[in-house]
Amino acid sequence: MTAALAGSGQSGGAELADLKVIAFDVFGTVVDWHSGIAAEAERLLPGVDGGAFALAWRAGYQPAMKCVMERMASDVGHGGGTGGFTLLDELHMSILEGVLRDFGQTDVDPALRRELNRAWHRLPAWPDAVAGLARLKKKYIICTLSNGNIGLLTEMAKGAGLPWDCVLSAEVFKAYKPDPRTYLGVAAVFDVAPGHVMLAAAHHDDLAAARACGLKTGYIERPNEFGAARPKDVSPQPDNSLHARDIDALADLLGC
Amino acid sequence: MTAALAGSGQSGGAELADLKVIAFDVFGTVVDWHSGIAAEAERLLPGVDGGAFALAWRAGYQPAMKCVMERMASDVGHGGGTGGFTLLDELHMSILEGVLRDFGQTDVDPALRRELNRAWHRLPAWPDAVAGLARLKKKYIICTLSNGNIGLLTEMAKGAGLPWDCVLSAEVFKAYKPDPRTYLGVAAVFDVAPGHVMLAAAHHDDLAAARACGLKTGYIERPNEFGAARPKDVSPQPDNSLHARDIDALADLLGC
Repeated sequence: MTAALAGSGQSGGAELADLKVIAFDVFGTVVDWHSGIAAEAERLLPGVDGGAFALAWRAGYQPAMKCVMERMASDVGHGGGTGGFTLLDELHMSILEGVLRDFGQTDVDPALRRELNRAWHRLPAWPDAVAGLARLKKKYIICTLSNGNIGLLTEMAKGAGLPWDCVLSAEVFKAYKPDPRTYLGVAAVFDVAPGHVMLAAAHHDDLAAARACGLKTGYIERPNEFGAARPKDVSPQPDNSLHARDIDALADLLGC
Repeated sequence: MTAALAGSGQSGGAELADLKVIAFDVFGTVVDWHSGIAAEAERLLPGVDGGAFALAWRAGYQPAMKCVMERMASDVGHGGGTGGFTLLDELHMSILEGVLRDFGQTDVDPALRRELNRAWHRLPAWPDAVAGLARLKKKYIICTLSNGNIGLLTEMAKGAGLPWDCVLSAEVFKAYKPDPRTYLGVAAVFDVAPGHVMLAAAHHDDLAAARACGLKTGYIERPNEFGAARPKDVSPQPDNSLHARDIDALADLLGC
Protein backbone atom coordinates (compact mmCIF):
# COMPACT_ATOMS: atom_id res chain seq x y z
CA MET A 1 0.00 0.00 0.00
CA THR A 2 1.55 3.29 -1.02
CA ALA A 3 -1.04 5.66 0.42
CA ALA A 4 -3.35 5.46 3.40
CA LEU A 5 -6.42 7.40 4.37
CA ALA A 6 -5.73 9.49 7.43
CA GLY A 7 -9.18 9.14 8.89
CA SER A 8 -12.08 11.54 8.97
CA GLY A 9 -9.85 14.43 8.01
CA GLN A 10 -8.59 12.83 4.81
CA SER A 11 -9.65 15.22 2.10
CA GLY A 12 -11.50 14.18 -0.95
CA GLY A 13 -10.56 15.70 -4.28
CA ALA A 14 -12.82 18.72 -3.84
CA GLU A 15 -11.03 20.33 -0.91
CA LEU A 16 -7.69 20.02 -2.69
CA ALA A 17 -8.93 20.97 -6.15
CA ASP A 18 -7.50 24.48 -5.89
CA LEU A 19 -4.15 23.50 -4.39
CA LYS A 20 -1.36 25.42 -6.13
CA VAL A 21 1.75 25.15 -4.00
CA ILE A 22 3.28 22.33 -1.95
CA ALA A 23 5.92 23.50 0.51
CA PHE A 24 8.10 20.75 1.96
CA ASP A 25 9.74 20.48 5.29
CA VAL A 26 13.19 19.14 4.44
CA PHE A 27 15.16 17.57 7.33
CA GLY A 28 13.62 14.18 7.91
CA THR A 29 10.85 14.67 5.36
CA VAL A 30 12.84 14.91 2.12
CA VAL A 31 16.34 13.99 3.26
CA ASP A 32 17.63 11.41 5.72
CA TRP A 33 19.60 13.53 8.18
CA HIS A 34 20.27 10.63 10.56
CA SER A 35 22.04 8.37 8.09
CA GLY A 36 23.76 11.28 6.37
CA ILE A 37 25.20 12.83 9.52
CA ALA A 38 26.07 9.44 11.00
CA ALA A 39 28.06 8.46 7.90
CA GLU A 40 29.89 11.78 7.73
CA ALA A 41 30.70 11.74 11.45
CA GLU A 42 32.18 8.25 11.14
CA ARG A 43 34.15 9.25 8.05
CA LEU A 44 35.57 12.43 9.56
CA LEU A 45 35.87 11.34 13.20
CA PRO A 46 37.08 7.72 13.11
CA GLY A 47 35.92 5.70 16.09
CA VAL A 48 32.90 7.87 16.86
CA ASP A 49 29.45 6.26 17.07
CA GLY A 50 27.93 8.10 14.10
CA GLY A 51 24.31 7.35 14.94
CA ALA A 52 24.65 8.66 18.48
CA PHE A 53 26.58 11.67 17.22
CA ALA A 54 23.80 12.49 14.73
CA LEU A 55 21.12 12.24 17.42
CA ALA A 56 23.08 14.45 19.80
CA TRP A 57 23.68 17.09 17.16
CA ARG A 58 20.06 17.13 16.06
CA ALA A 59 18.89 17.30 19.68
CA GLY A 60 20.47 20.75 19.96
CA TYR A 61 18.46 22.10 17.02
CA GLN A 62 15.14 23.07 18.61
CA PRO A 63 16.70 24.62 21.75
CA ALA A 64 19.10 26.68 19.63
CA MET A 65 16.30 28.12 17.49
CA LYS A 66 14.18 28.76 20.56
CA CYS A 67 17.02 30.73 22.08
CA VAL A 68 17.35 32.92 18.96
CA MET A 69 13.60 33.51 18.79
CA GLU A 70 13.43 34.52 22.45
CA ARG A 71 16.32 36.93 21.96
CA MET A 72 14.69 38.41 18.86
CA ALA A 73 11.37 38.81 20.69
CA SER A 74 12.98 40.49 23.70
CA ASP A 75 14.86 42.90 21.42
CA VAL A 76 11.65 44.34 20.02
CA GLY A 77 9.07 43.77 22.71
CA HIS A 78 6.25 41.51 21.62
CA GLY A 79 6.25 42.56 17.98
CA GLY A 80 8.44 39.71 16.77
CA GLY A 81 11.20 41.56 14.93
CA THR A 82 13.73 40.21 12.48
CA GLY A 83 17.00 41.59 13.90
CA GLY A 84 19.42 38.98 15.19
CA PHE A 85 18.08 36.19 12.99
CA THR A 86 20.76 33.51 12.80
CA LEU A 87 21.42 31.12 9.92
CA LEU A 88 21.08 27.42 10.64
CA ASP A 89 24.68 26.88 9.51
CA GLU A 90 25.78 29.03 12.44
CA LEU A 91 23.45 27.31 14.89
CA HIS A 92 24.69 23.91 13.71
CA MET A 93 28.28 25.04 14.26
CA SER A 94 27.63 26.27 17.77
CA ILE A 95 25.79 23.06 18.69
CA LEU A 96 28.63 21.06 17.15
CA GLU A 97 31.13 22.56 19.57
CA GLY A 98 29.27 21.07 22.51
CA VAL A 99 28.69 17.71 20.83
CA LEU A 100 32.38 17.36 20.02
CA ARG A 101 33.19 18.02 23.67
CA ASP A 102 30.61 15.49 24.81
CA PHE A 103 32.11 12.88 22.48
CA GLY A 104 35.65 13.60 23.68
CA GLN A 105 36.65 15.09 20.31
CA THR A 106 38.50 18.11 21.60
CA ASP A 107 41.26 18.44 19.03
CA VAL A 108 39.21 18.79 15.83
CA ASP A 109 40.70 21.63 13.82
CA PRO A 110 38.55 24.44 12.38
CA ALA A 111 38.74 23.19 8.78
CA LEU A 112 37.48 19.77 9.81
CA ARG A 113 34.73 21.31 11.95
CA ARG A 114 33.65 23.31 8.93
CA GLU A 115 33.65 20.24 6.70
CA LEU A 116 31.64 18.36 9.31
CA ASN A 117 29.19 21.24 9.62
CA ARG A 118 28.66 21.19 5.88
CA ALA A 119 27.57 17.56 6.11
CA TRP A 120 24.10 19.10 6.49
CA HIS A 121 24.52 20.43 2.92
CA ARG A 122 25.25 16.94 1.63
CA LEU A 123 22.42 14.93 3.14
CA PRO A 124 21.01 12.10 1.02
CA ALA A 125 17.42 12.20 -0.20
CA TRP A 126 15.06 9.46 0.90
CA PRO A 127 14.83 6.97 -1.99
CA ASP A 128 11.36 8.11 -3.11
CA ALA A 129 11.99 11.87 -2.90
CA VAL A 130 13.47 12.82 -6.28
CA ALA A 131 10.94 10.86 -8.34
CA GLY A 132 8.01 11.92 -6.16
CA LEU A 133 8.94 15.60 -6.34
CA ALA A 134 9.37 15.40 -10.11
CA ARG A 135 5.83 14.04 -10.40
CA LEU A 136 4.38 16.72 -8.11
CA LYS A 137 6.28 19.47 -9.94
CA LYS A 138 4.32 18.83 -13.12
CA LYS A 139 1.08 19.89 -11.43
CA TYR A 140 2.14 22.17 -8.54
CA ILE A 141 4.73 24.70 -7.56
CA ILE A 142 7.01 22.77 -5.22
CA CYS A 143 9.29 24.57 -2.81
CA THR A 144 11.11 24.03 0.43
CA LEU A 145 9.92 25.53 3.69
CA SER A 146 12.74 24.69 6.03
CA ASN A 147 14.59 26.28 8.89
CA GLY A 148 17.75 25.51 6.93
CA ASN A 149 19.42 28.50 5.30
CA ILE A 150 19.14 29.13 1.56
CA GLY A 151 22.74 28.18 0.79
CA LEU A 152 22.44 24.92 2.70
CA LEU A 153 19.18 24.00 0.96
CA THR A 154 20.48 24.96 -2.47
CA GLU A 155 23.66 22.91 -2.17
CA MET A 156 21.65 20.00 -0.80
CA ALA A 157 19.26 20.19 -3.75
CA LYS A 158 22.15 20.30 -6.20
CA GLY A 159 23.85 17.33 -4.57
CA ALA A 160 20.76 15.18 -4.18
CA GLY A 161 18.99 16.25 -7.39
CA LEU A 162 15.93 17.73 -5.69
CA PRO A 163 14.00 19.59 -8.40
CA TRP A 164 12.59 22.52 -6.40
CA ASP A 165 10.87 25.31 -8.25
CA CYS A 166 12.18 27.61 -5.56
CA VAL A 167 14.01 27.45 -2.25
CA LEU A 168 12.11 29.13 0.57
CA SER A 169 13.59 29.20 4.02
CA ALA A 170 13.38 30.73 7.45
CA GLU A 171 16.13 32.96 6.06
CA VAL A 172 13.68 34.57 3.62
CA PHE A 173 11.12 35.32 6.33
CA LYS A 174 13.60 36.00 9.13
CA ALA A 175 11.65 33.68 11.39
CA TYR A 176 11.79 29.97 12.04
CA LYS A 177 8.95 27.52 11.84
CA PRO A 178 6.57 27.28 13.64
CA ASP A 179 6.31 31.09 13.46
CA PRO A 180 3.18 31.92 11.40
CA ARG A 181 5.25 34.32 9.28
CA THR A 182 6.85 31.31 7.61
CA TYR A 183 3.66 29.49 6.59
CA LEU A 184 1.79 32.66 5.67
CA GLY A 185 4.95 33.86 3.93
CA VAL A 186 4.74 31.02 1.41
CA ALA A 187 1.18 32.01 0.52
CA ALA A 188 2.22 35.67 0.22
CA VAL A 189 5.18 34.83 -2.03
CA PHE A 190 2.85 33.15 -4.49
CA ASP A 191 -0.02 35.60 -3.95
CA VAL A 192 -2.52 32.89 -3.07
CA ALA A 193 -4.76 32.24 -0.07
CA PRO A 194 -3.24 29.99 2.63
CA GLY A 195 -5.70 27.24 1.71
CA HIS A 196 -4.07 26.95 -1.71
CA VAL A 197 -0.81 25.90 -0.07
CA MET A 198 -0.02 22.51 1.45
CA LEU A 199 2.78 21.89 3.91
CA ALA A 200 4.18 18.38 3.51
CA ALA A 201 6.13 17.21 6.54
CA ALA A 202 7.03 14.21 8.64
CA HIS A 203 6.30 16.13 11.85
CA HIS A 204 2.84 16.62 13.28
CA ASP A 205 3.78 19.75 15.24
CA ASP A 206 4.97 21.51 12.07
CA LEU A 207 1.77 20.48 10.31
CA ALA A 208 -0.41 21.64 13.20
CA ALA A 209 1.18 25.10 13.09
CA ALA A 210 0.65 25.29 9.32
CA ARG A 211 -2.96 24.19 9.70
CA ALA A 212 -3.55 26.92 12.28
CA CYS A 213 -2.54 29.39 9.54
CA GLY A 214 -5.04 27.90 7.12
CA LEU A 215 -2.70 25.73 5.06
CA LYS A 216 -3.54 22.23 3.92
CA THR A 217 -1.32 19.55 5.44
CA GLY A 218 0.21 16.35 4.12
CA TYR A 219 1.89 13.98 6.57
CA ILE A 220 4.78 11.94 5.20
CA GLU A 221 5.68 8.78 7.13
CA ARG A 222 9.37 8.53 7.93
CA PRO A 223 9.51 5.74 10.50
CA ASN A 224 13.31 5.64 10.38
CA GLU A 225 13.92 9.36 10.73
CA PHE A 226 15.89 8.74 13.94
CA GLY A 227 17.52 5.57 12.64
CA ALA A 228 16.21 2.05 12.16
CA ALA A 229 16.98 1.29 15.82
CA ARG A 230 14.58 3.99 17.00
CA PRO A 231 11.41 3.62 14.92
CA LYS A 232 9.05 6.58 15.10
CA ASP A 233 5.28 6.37 15.55
CA VAL A 234 3.85 7.32 12.17
CA SER A 235 0.18 6.83 13.00
CA PRO A 236 -2.22 9.00 11.02
CA GLN A 237 -3.71 12.03 12.70
CA PRO A 238 -7.15 12.86 11.38
CA ASP A 239 -6.62 16.61 11.17
CA ASN A 240 -4.17 16.29 8.30
CA SER A 241 -5.56 16.75 4.80
CA LEU A 242 -3.52 13.79 3.54
CA HIS A 243 -1.42 11.00 5.00
CA ALA A 244 1.14 9.39 2.68
CA ARG A 245 3.74 6.69 3.15
CA ASP A 246 6.26 8.73 1.20
CA ILE A 247 6.48 11.49 -1.40
CA ASP A 248 5.74 9.15 -4.26
CA ALA A 249 2.58 8.14 -2.43
CA LEU A 250 1.69 11.82 -1.97
CA ALA A 251 1.89 12.18 -5.76
CA ASP A 252 -0.46 9.19 -6.07
CA LEU A 253 -2.93 10.76 -3.66
CA LEU A 254 -2.86 14.05 -5.56
CA GLY A 255 -3.38 12.38 -8.92
CA CYS A 256 0.01 13.37 -10.35
CA MET B 1 31.71 33.61 -33.41
CA THR B 2 29.85 32.78 -30.23
CA ALA B 3 32.11 34.58 -27.76
CA ALA B 4 34.25 37.68 -27.97
CA LEU B 5 37.08 38.97 -25.85
CA ALA B 6 35.99 42.10 -24.01
CA GLY B 7 39.37 43.79 -24.21
CA SER B 8 42.07 44.19 -21.61
CA GLY B 9 39.69 43.24 -18.84
CA GLN B 10 38.78 39.87 -20.34
CA SER B 11 39.83 37.38 -17.73
CA GLY B 12 41.96 34.42 -18.49
CA GLY B 13 41.13 31.13 -16.82
CA ALA B 14 43.17 31.89 -13.70
CA GLU B 15 41.07 34.75 -12.39
CA LEU B 16 37.89 32.74 -12.82
CA ALA B 17 39.29 29.43 -11.58
CA ASP B 18 37.59 29.80 -8.21
CA LEU B 19 34.24 30.98 -9.50
CA LYS B 20 31.45 29.15 -7.67
CA VAL B 21 28.21 31.02 -8.29
CA ILE B 22 26.76 32.78 -11.32
CA ALA B 23 23.89 35.12 -10.49
CA PHE B 24 21.82 36.26 -13.45
CA ASP B 25 19.97 39.43 -14.04
CA VAL B 26 16.70 38.25 -15.56
CA PHE B 27 14.64 40.90 -17.43
CA GLY B 28 16.40 41.43 -20.74
CA THR B 29 19.28 39.09 -19.91
CA VAL B 30 17.50 35.74 -19.61
CA VAL B 31 14.01 36.57 -20.85
CA ASP B 32 12.75 38.80 -23.64
CA TRP B 33 10.45 41.20 -21.82
CA HIS B 34 9.85 43.37 -24.88
CA SER B 35 8.41 40.63 -27.10
CA GLY B 36 6.63 38.96 -24.21
CA ILE B 37 4.85 42.07 -22.97
CA ALA B 38 4.12 43.31 -26.49
CA ALA B 39 2.44 40.02 -27.41
CA GLU B 40 0.40 39.89 -24.22
CA ALA B 41 -0.67 43.54 -24.54
CA GLU B 42 -1.87 42.92 -28.09
CA ARG B 43 -3.67 39.76 -27.04
CA LEU B 44 -5.42 41.33 -24.06
CA LEU B 45 -5.91 44.88 -25.38
CA PRO B 46 -6.87 44.50 -29.06
CA GLY B 47 -5.77 47.44 -31.18
CA VAL B 48 -2.97 48.55 -28.85
CA ASP B 49 0.57 48.91 -30.23
CA GLY B 50 2.16 46.18 -28.13
CA GLY B 51 5.76 47.25 -28.67
CA ALA B 52 5.06 50.82 -27.61
CA PHE B 53 3.02 49.58 -24.66
CA ALA B 54 5.90 47.36 -23.50
CA LEU B 55 8.41 50.22 -23.73
CA ALA B 56 6.11 52.57 -21.81
CA TRP B 57 5.52 50.03 -19.06
CA ARG B 58 9.18 49.20 -18.70
CA ALA B 59 10.09 52.91 -18.67
CA GLY B 60 8.27 53.25 -15.37
CA TYR B 61 10.38 50.56 -13.70
CA GLN B 62 13.49 52.44 -12.61
CA PRO B 63 11.60 55.54 -11.37
CA ALA B 64 9.20 53.36 -9.35
CA MET B 65 12.05 51.52 -7.60
CA LYS B 66 13.90 54.76 -6.99
CA CYS B 67 10.81 56.16 -5.32
CA VAL B 68 10.54 53.15 -2.97
CA MET B 69 14.24 53.29 -2.12
CA GLU B 70 14.09 56.99 -1.33
CA ARG B 71 11.08 56.44 0.90
CA MET B 72 12.80 53.54 2.69
CA ALA B 73 15.95 55.61 3.20
CA SER B 74 14.04 58.58 4.58
CA ASP B 75 12.15 56.31 6.98
CA VAL B 76 15.33 55.23 8.72
CA GLY B 77 17.73 58.11 8.18
CA HIS B 78 20.76 57.10 6.17
CA GLY B 79 20.95 53.54 7.41
CA GLY B 80 19.06 52.01 4.52
CA GLY B 81 16.31 50.06 6.29
CA THR B 82 14.06 47.35 4.93
CA GLY B 83 10.62 48.61 5.98
CA GLY B 84 8.31 49.57 3.15
CA PHE B 85 9.99 47.33 0.59
CA THR B 86 7.54 46.80 -2.26
CA LEU B 87 7.26 43.76 -4.52
CA LEU B 88 7.81 44.30 -8.22
CA ASP B 89 4.36 42.88 -8.94
CA GLU B 90 2.90 45.83 -7.03
CA LEU B 91 5.17 48.35 -8.74
CA HIS B 92 4.25 46.89 -12.14
CA MET B 93 0.57 47.24 -11.29
CA SER B 94 0.89 50.86 -10.23
CA ILE B 95 2.89 51.71 -13.36
CA LEU B 96 0.32 49.88 -15.46
CA GLU B 97 -2.46 52.18 -14.27
CA GLY B 98 -0.69 55.17 -15.81
CA VAL B 99 0.25 53.35 -18.99
CA LEU B 100 -3.34 52.24 -19.54
CA ARG B 101 -4.47 55.86 -19.15
CA ASP B 102 -1.80 57.07 -21.58
CA PHE B 103 -2.93 54.49 -24.13
CA GLY B 104 -6.58 55.44 -23.73
CA GLN B 105 -7.45 52.09 -22.12
CA THR B 106 -9.59 53.43 -19.31
CA ASP B 107 -12.19 50.67 -19.01
CA VAL B 108 -9.96 47.67 -18.35
CA ASP B 109 -11.50 45.70 -15.50
CA PRO B 110 -9.47 44.57 -12.46
CA ALA B 111 -9.32 40.91 -13.52
CA LEU B 112 -7.88 41.85 -16.90
CA ARG B 113 -5.41 44.26 -15.29
CA ARG B 114 -4.28 41.46 -13.07
CA GLU B 115 -3.88 39.06 -15.99
CA LEU B 116 -1.95 41.71 -17.88
CA ASN B 117 0.27 42.35 -14.87
CA ARG B 118 1.05 38.67 -14.66
CA ALA B 119 2.39 38.77 -18.21
CA TRP B 120 5.71 39.49 -16.47
CA HIS B 121 5.43 35.98 -14.95
CA ARG B 122 5.04 34.45 -18.41
CA LEU B 123 7.90 36.06 -20.32
CA PRO B 124 9.66 33.90 -22.90
CA ALA B 125 13.31 32.96 -22.49
CA TRP B 126 15.80 34.08 -25.13
CA PRO B 127 16.38 31.07 -27.40
CA ASP B 128 19.84 30.27 -25.97
CA ALA B 129 18.93 30.64 -22.29
CA VAL B 130 17.62 27.22 -21.24
CA ALA B 131 20.41 25.25 -22.89
CA GLY B 132 23.10 27.68 -21.76
CA LEU B 133 21.92 27.65 -18.15
CA ALA B 134 21.77 23.84 -18.16
CA ARG B 135 25.42 23.74 -19.23
CA LEU B 136 26.51 26.28 -16.61
CA LYS B 137 24.54 24.48 -13.90
CA LYS B 138 26.77 21.42 -14.22
CA LYS B 139 29.78 23.40 -13.03
CA TYR B 140 28.37 26.30 -11.01
CA ILE B 141 25.54 27.24 -8.72
CA ILE B 142 23.24 29.28 -10.95
CA CYS B 143 20.68 31.62 -9.45
CA THR B 144 18.68 34.68 -10.30
CA LEU B 145 19.52 38.09 -8.92
CA SER B 146 16.63 40.18 -10.08
CA ASN B 147 14.46 42.96 -8.81
CA GLY B 148 11.53 40.75 -9.68
CA ASN B 149 9.78 39.16 -6.71
CA ILE B 150 10.25 35.50 -5.84
CA GLY B 151 6.80 34.42 -6.99
CA LEU B 152 7.19 36.17 -10.33
CA LEU B 153 10.62 34.63 -10.93
CA THR B 154 9.49 31.16 -9.85
CA GLU B 155 6.46 31.13 -12.12
CA MET B 156 8.57 32.48 -14.97
CA ALA B 157 11.15 29.73 -14.44
CA LYS B 158 8.44 27.10 -14.39
CA GLY B 159 6.87 28.42 -17.56
CA ALA B 160 10.06 28.92 -19.51
CA GLY B 161 11.95 25.91 -18.13
CA LEU B 162 14.78 27.91 -16.54
CA PRO B 163 16.75 25.45 -14.40
CA TRP B 164 17.78 27.70 -11.50
CA ASP B 165 19.42 26.14 -8.49
CA CYS B 166 17.77 28.84 -6.44
CA VAL B 167 15.72 31.99 -6.94
CA LEU B 168 17.30 35.03 -5.30
CA SER B 169 15.61 38.36 -5.54
CA ALA B 170 15.47 41.87 -4.21
CA GLU B 171 12.65 40.42 -2.09
CA VAL B 172 15.14 38.25 -0.17
CA PHE B 173 17.45 41.17 0.59
CA LYS B 174 14.72 43.82 0.93
CA ALA B 175 16.70 46.08 -1.37
CA TYR B 176 16.77 46.51 -5.13
CA LYS B 177 19.80 46.39 -7.36
CA PRO B 178 22.07 48.36 -7.55
CA ASP B 179 22.05 48.40 -3.72
CA PRO B 180 25.24 46.62 -2.57
CA ARG B 181 23.16 44.48 -0.19
CA THR B 182 21.90 42.55 -3.20
CA TYR B 183 25.27 41.66 -4.74
CA LEU B 184 26.96 41.04 -1.39
CA GLY B 185 23.87 39.17 -0.31
CA VAL B 186 24.45 36.51 -2.95
CA ALA B 187 27.98 35.93 -1.69
CA ALA B 188 26.70 35.76 1.90
CA VAL B 189 23.96 33.26 1.02
CA PHE B 190 26.57 30.89 -0.36
CA ASP B 191 29.21 31.78 2.24
CA VAL B 192 31.84 32.69 -0.34
CA ALA B 193 33.92 35.79 -1.01
CA PRO B 194 32.37 38.24 -3.52
CA GLY B 195 35.09 37.35 -6.04
CA HIS B 196 33.72 33.82 -6.23
CA VAL B 197 30.44 35.16 -7.59
CA MET B 198 29.79 36.44 -11.12
CA LEU B 199 26.89 38.64 -12.08
CA ALA B 200 25.78 37.95 -15.64
CA ALA B 201 23.71 40.77 -17.12
CA ALA B 202 22.89 42.62 -20.31
CA HIS B 203 23.25 45.98 -18.53
CA HIS B 204 26.57 47.67 -17.90
CA ASP B 205 25.27 49.73 -14.95
CA ASP B 206 24.17 46.59 -13.09
CA LEU B 207 27.55 45.00 -13.79
CA ALA B 208 29.44 48.11 -12.66
CA ALA B 209 27.61 48.08 -9.33
CA ALA B 210 28.38 44.37 -8.87
CA ARG B 211 32.03 44.96 -9.73
CA ALA B 212 32.24 47.72 -7.12
CA CYS B 213 31.24 45.05 -4.58
CA GLY B 214 34.02 42.74 -5.74
CA LEU B 215 31.98 40.40 -7.94
CA LYS B 216 33.15 39.13 -11.31
CA THR B 217 31.04 40.34 -14.23
CA GLY B 218 29.84 38.74 -17.43
CA TYR B 219 28.17 40.93 -20.05
CA ILE B 220 25.53 39.25 -22.21
CA GLU B 221 24.71 40.92 -25.52
CA ARG B 222 21.01 41.44 -26.07
CA PRO B 223 20.90 43.84 -29.00
CA ASN B 224 17.13 43.43 -29.36
CA GLU B 225 16.24 43.94 -25.72
CA PHE B 226 14.10 46.96 -26.67
CA GLY B 227 12.81 45.37 -29.85
CA ALA B 228 14.39 44.81 -33.25
CA ALA B 229 13.43 48.35 -34.25
CA ARG B 230 15.53 49.85 -31.46
CA PRO B 231 18.85 47.97 -31.50
CA LYS B 232 20.98 48.50 -28.41
CA ASP B 233 24.70 49.21 -28.38
CA VAL B 234 26.29 46.01 -27.14
CA SER B 235 29.93 47.08 -27.42
CA PRO B 236 32.30 45.39 -24.99
CA GLN B 237 33.45 47.32 -21.97
CA PRO B 238 36.91 46.31 -20.83
CA ASP B 239 36.10 46.29 -17.12
CA ASN B 240 33.90 43.23 -17.43
CA SER B 241 35.48 39.88 -16.68
CA LEU B 242 33.77 38.30 -19.69
CA HIS B 243 31.76 39.44 -22.69
CA ALA B 244 29.51 36.87 -24.35
CA ARG B 245 27.09 36.98 -27.25
CA ASP B 246 24.58 34.97 -25.26
CA ILE B 247 24.32 32.52 -22.37
CA ASP B 248 25.43 29.60 -24.48
CA ALA B 249 28.54 31.59 -25.39
CA LEU B 250 29.10 32.32 -21.69
CA ALA B 251 29.14 28.57 -21.11
CA ASP B 252 31.73 28.24 -23.91
CA LEU B 253 33.93 30.92 -22.31
CA LEU B 254 33.73 29.21 -18.93
CA GLY B 255 34.59 25.80 -20.37
CA CYS B 256 31.26 24.20 -19.52
